[in-house]
Amino acid sequence: MRRVCVAGAGVIGSLFAAHLSRVAEVSALTRREEHARALREQGLRVTGRADFLARIDAATSPLELPEPELLIVACKGTDLESAAERLEGHWPDAIVMTVQNGIGAGDVIARYGAWRLLTSVTFMSGTRHADTHVEYVLDTATWIGPARGTTPEDARRVAELIASSGLEAEAFDDLRPAQWSKLIFNATVNTVAALTGLPHDAHFAALAEPSDLGFLVRGLIDEGKAVAAAAGVPLREDPWEMNVLATKRGSAHYPSMLEDVEAHRRTEIDTITGALVREAHRLGVPVPLHETMERLIKAKEASWQ
Amino acid sequence: MRRVCVAGAGVIGSLFAAHLSRVAEVSALTRREEHARALREQGLRVTGRADFLARIDAATSPLELPEPELLIVACKGTDLESAAERLEGHWPDAIVMTVQNGIGAGDVIARYGAWRLLTSVTFMSGTRHADTHVEYVLDTATWIGPARGTTPEDARRVAELIASSGLEAEAFDDLRPAQWSKLIFNATVNTVAALTGLPHDAHFAALAEPSDLGFLVRGLIDEGKAVAAAAGVPLREDPWEMNVLATKRGSAHYPSMLEDVEAHRRTEIDTITGALVREAHRLGVPVPLHETMERLIKAKEASWQ
Repeated sequence: MRRVCVAGAGVIGSLFAAHLSRVAEVSALTRREEHARALREQGLRVTGRADFLARIDAATSPLELPEPELLIVACKGTDLESAAERLEGHWPDAIVMTVQNGIGAGDVIARYGAWRLLTSVTFMSGTRHADTHVEYVLDTATWIGPARGTTPEDARRVAELIASSGLEAEAFDDLRPAQWSKLIFNATVNTVAALTGLPHDAHFAALAEPSDLGFLVRGLIDEGKAVAAAAGVPLREDPWEMNVLATKRGSAHYPSMLEDVEAHRRTEIDTITGALVREAHRLGVPVPLHETMERLIKAKEASWQ
Repeated sequence: MRRVCVAGAGVIGSLFAAHLSRVAEVSALTRREEHARALREQGLRVTGRADFLARIDAATSPLELPEPELLIVACKGTDLESAAERLEGHWPDAIVMTVQNGIGAGDVIARYGAWRLLTSVTFMSGTRHADTHVEYVLDTATWIGPARGTTPEDARRVAELIASSGLEAEAFDDLRPAQWSKLIFNATVNTVAALTGLPHDAHFAALAEPSDLGFLVRGLIDEGKAVAAAAGVPLREDPWEMNVLATKRGSAHYPSMLEDVEAHRRTEIDTITGALVREAHRLGVPVPLHETMERLIKAKEASWQ
C-alpha cells in the first residue's frame, strides 16, 4: 500500500495522516478549503509523543487527489453521512477503514458504494492546536478487523502499515469483542460525563452510598453486557474493570462528549448510545438506563438549538 | 392571629411577609444582618401582580423579634436545618408552617422543638430583584394542611389569614394527596430541566420518537405514582396531566433546580428526589429512573466542588 488518503483531519485523522506520510504517499480530504490549503502550504506538525513536520497533499474533493489504496475515514460520527456522500462514486478499488466511536459506521459507508471495508476502534488520543498542528497525547493502539469484502489478512496488512509508521496498531480476526467492550464503556462514560460535567474521575467507581455515581455506571454497564450477550458477542474486556482502571490513572480523562456539550456541539449520541439502544430493541433486551441517557443528551442538544 | 414571623426572605418568604403585613404585624428572620437592616430601613417592595411597599420588622435572631403566633419557615430546603437550629428554644407557643418543596420539612423542624406544625405546598412564584424587592409572577395558591399537634381548623384559620392578605390559599383536611402530586411532578421536572438545560417546555411532553424526552418524563412519573400507591396516598392530580398542561402555557417555566445548577448552587435534590427514593426503598418499590436522576444531580454538584 503506497497511497493512503485520510478523510477528516481532526485529531485522529491528523495523527494517522502525519505518521503514515513517513511510509506512504498521503493525502487528506478535508471539509474546508482553507484547511486543505493550510495543510498543502504549511504541512502538518506533530508534537507531544512525536515531533516532526509531515508533508501531505490535501483537497476538499476526491477529484483533486490521487486514488488511494487505503482510505481512512476519520471524521466524527456526526459528519460521517456527509463524508460518505462526498466519496460516493470515487475510488472503487480502495479499502475503506472506519474509525468512528460506537458501531454502525461501516453500515453508513456501505450505503454509498461497494468499497471493501475494514472496521477499527482507536484508543489513541491527542489535542488539536491548529489546522496544521496536532499534539500526540496517548499512544495507545488502534485495533483493526475485517468487515464487508475484506479478510483478516487485509486487516493485518493495514495494521502492519500503521505500526511501521510509528503508531500502535493490532489486527483481529473478529473485532466485535473489542468493539463492543469499547461501545459499552463509551456509552456509559461519555453520557455520564456529559450530563454531570465530571471528567472520568473517581466518582465513576464510587459505591459507598446508594446515591453514589458508581451504581449508575455499573447499571449502565450491566445493561450493555446483557445486550452483547444477546447479540452473541463475547466481550474482550469487562467495561466495569476498564472503568475502575481508568479512574485510577493520575489525571482524569475529559471524554469527548463532555467537550461537545460544553462547546454546544452536536454529540455522537446516535452512533454510541443510540446504536446500543437500537441493538437492544432489535434483540428484545430492556435498557431503561441507556434510553434515559439518550433522551437526556438529545434534550440537552435541543436546549441550545 | 395578629403577629406573624417569616423565616427566610427569599421569593416565597418575601411574598408572604409583604402581603401579610397588610393584615398582621409581620417580622422577617433573615440569615444576613445586611438583609435585615435593608428591610427595616427601606421596607419590602412588591411589583408584578401587586404593587405596594410593605413595612416590616426584621432581624437575624429570634431574640430581637416579638413572639409570633404563626411562624412561616420559607427558606430553601437546603437551609432548613440551619434555620431550625436558630429557632431551637424560641417561641414554643407558635404554630410553625413549612413551605419547602418535597416532603419531610416538618420532620426536620420537629427535631428542634415541640411546636405545633402545619404543612403546605405553594404554587405561587416570583422573581427576586433585590433584598427589598420581589416581583409577584404567578398568583397560584398555597395549600395548607394539619401536621403534628394541629387540626384542620388550624389550617383553615391560617389559610383565611393568608387569603385575606391578597394571596391565594386553601386548607385541606389531609394535604398528602396534593403534596405527593407536587412531589412527583417536582422530582421529575426539576431534575430533567437541571440535567438538560431545558426550561419546562414542549420537549417534556414529546412522545413522537422513542428517544423523545416525554418517555423519560412519563417513566419518572409512573415510578412516583407506584410509590404513592404503595404509601396509600391517593393523588389529588395526575402529575403527567400537570406536566402536559404546564408545557402548553405560553412561556416555559424555568425550574428552580435548573437555576441552582446554572449558578453552581447546592440543589434541593435531597428533599425532593432523595425523599421520594427513600420512601420507595422503605416500601420496597423499584425506582431506577429516580435513582439515576439523584445520582446524576449529586455528581453534577460534585463537579463544581
